[in-house]
Amino acid sequence: MIPTLEWTPEGVRFIDQTKLPLDEIYVTATSYQDVATIIRDMIVRGAPAIGVSAAMGIALGVDRSSATTLSQLTAEVEEMSKVLAATRPTAVNLFWAIDRMNEKYKELLTTPGVTIPEIKAALITEAQAMYDADIEACKQMGAHGATLLPEEGTVLTHCNAGALATCGYGTALGVIRAAVERGHKIDVLADETRPYLQGARLTAWELMQDNIPTTVLCDNMAGTLMRQGRIQAVIVGADRIAANGDVANKVGTYSVAVLAKEHGIPFYVAAPWSTIDLATAHGDQIPIEQRSPVEVTHSNGKQMTPHGVGIENPAFDVTPAKYVTAIITERGVLQAPYKVSMKEMLDAESAVPAV
Amino acid sequence: MIPTLEWTPEGVRFIDQTKLPLDEIYVTATSYQDVATIIRDMIVRGAPAIGVSAAMGIALGVDRSSATTLSQLTAEVEEMSKVLAATRPTAVNLFWAIDRMNEKYKELLTTPGVTIPEIKAALITEAQAMYDADIEACKQMGAHGATLLPEEGTVLTHCNAGALATCGYGTALGVIRAAVERGHKIDVLADETRPYLQGARLTAWELMQDNIPTTVLCDNMAGTLMRQGRIQAVIVGADRIAANGDVANKVGTYSVAVLAKEHGIPFYVAAPWSTIDLATAHGDQIPIEQRSPVEVTHSNGKQMTPHGVGIENPAFDVTPAKYVTAIITERGVLQAPYKVSMKEMLDAESAVPAV
Repeated sequence: MIPTLEWTPEGVRFIDQTKLPLDEIYVTATSYQDVATIIRDMIVRGAPAIGVSAAMGIALGVDRSSATTLSQLTAEVEEMSKVLAATRPTAVNLFWAIDRMNEKYKELLTTPGVTIPEIKAALITEAQAMYDADIEACKQMGAHGATLLPEEGTVLTHCNAGALATCGYGTALGVIRAAVERGHKIDVLADETRPYLQGARLTAWELMQDNIPTTVLCDNMAGTLMRQGRIQAVIVGADRIAANGDVANKVGTYSVAVLAKEHGIPFYVAAPWSTIDLATAHGDQIPIEQRSPVEVTHSNGKQMTPHGVGIENPAFDVTPAKYVTAIITERGVLQAPYKVSMKEMLDAESAVPAV
Repeated sequence: MIPTLEWTPEGVRFIDQTKLPLDEIYVTATSYQDVATIIRDMIVRGAPAIGVSAAMGIALGVDRSSATTLSQLTAEVEEMSKVLAATRPTAVNLFWAIDRMNEKYKELLTTPGVTIPEIKAALITEAQAMYDADIEACKQMGAHGATLLPEEGTVLTHCNAGALATCGYGTALGVIRAAVERGHKIDVLADETRPYLQGARLTAWELMQDNIPTTVLCDNMAGTLMRQGRIQAVIVGADRIAANGDVANKVGTYSVAVLAKEHGIPFYVAAPWSTIDLATAHGDQIPIEQRSPVEVTHSNGKQMTPHGVGIENPAFDVTPAKYVTAIITERGVLQAPYKVSMKEMLDAESAVPAV
């Protein structure tokens, strides 16, 4: 089990993803501000992991609060939510998780005679439930998506949508894991994913832990391998999916999707339902985070570009729904038209009586 | 004038392209073996520059030879040619230049009473003529290609097809320079070009020397910028062009070409006629150099990938002719069908009486 993040008595413990693959170092957040810094600095990253991290950040903030009145605590929860929401703009799971913790908090406030210690315990339980549900959702995505992958062949992935991007098992890599567990013979090609190298560092590391054959390539090499017939499917994660099926994911995803279409290769997206943002009509409304030029200009502390040159560093791009063969969620597999299939899946869900 | 390579009394002097942009260091080859190492280690790179480097390597080898008989010298020229030809397999200019020096050498041998000092002087003159012709060809490409670029707009380029890839002025960047000299307002987007970062390091450096506005982006970002309507044209160089117009160039070129087609953006290739290999029917017959995995796994001496992971590192890819809007040569602009337009241009050329 890859220990992406974990609630511990000392605080929220994270594996430092900036140090992988050669150093396995852990950092423990002992305040919600620590959690915010850890998200912003990409010590933890990946939409589902960011969401649960923020939830645990609020649980941690409340747990360590010295508030003596509920109104004091409410003000603190508002501040925590604001600070955590300001860390990264694109992944909708962040806002979803913060909202869910706030709803839980408000629900607790309506409980007659509720005490601050009871609220602290209940919010820790809520964050832990979200943690467990995230792993379970990944397993369900795996179950739904495994049959879409070839019995034998090579699957390309971009960035890291693995155990390290979730609380465990992974979204896109979870589907690959599930296929391998069901006997598929799959080789993985991992785009290195500049500038942060999530593919070269994180996807390669976690797949090798599971003995899944993995080859790293530069992002600009996938096209020629597709042309050579060496890629049978593409699967990626998502940071936000609009109501029409447009997918925001790590920059470069769009190029891979266009290339896949040009070569008749299926292009799959695996993401938990919490990544779907029904309030956003289409992908061009999704805010795209611009990160520091230094991520592009410098490599291991050394400047690679001339002084003063302009730099582009969008962290994400949008892949229009028309390039997406299917979206694999824990509730099932969505296909175009996504507006319709999302609605059908929601309706089916609400038709099932809650147990 | 950017001093890519130069014949000097001490030997062939190169700017060390592995050290740019922050360090401007020169190395002088004093033997043909030095030149071979300099080509193999990519201290000089770029198809036209490699060609002239090899020619100068032979001139240098002959100049420094202590052979006292013509048959001894002939054996040495054969050995030099073999060593220089074994440096890099894809750029056809290398073989073209070696062949041309060998033809000149054979022609000199047929001159009655020719002396070794005369051969030495004539081969230096020949290499220098190739050097001058290379710069002149770039200027001609610029003259032919400038009008194809927008009056005002952003042009994407991949790798470095500039002064540093030639003896001066550049092929793709020469066309950009020519357009700018003619008053076009052009911003350049330079793909960083993993793994060797020719775009981030070399293209950015030389365009900034000429005050042409330049922005570096990771290779995986061009697609999203195209989708945003921020790129009006693409122009790249070539390492070898097959008889049907298929283009071998730096890996990633193919992906850019597919993306350009998807967005209706013209995709131009600028290359001297010596890059066209009429003996190769189509692109899939062009040998593609595989370089060391270390170029991908390591960055500034630090390993970025887990131990034992597989690595792909093809240095080039092939862009089928159907993606190429036009090929700009010193003889004029070729358009599809390339087999026909190449033949027409050759026929027109040979119809002109030599002056």
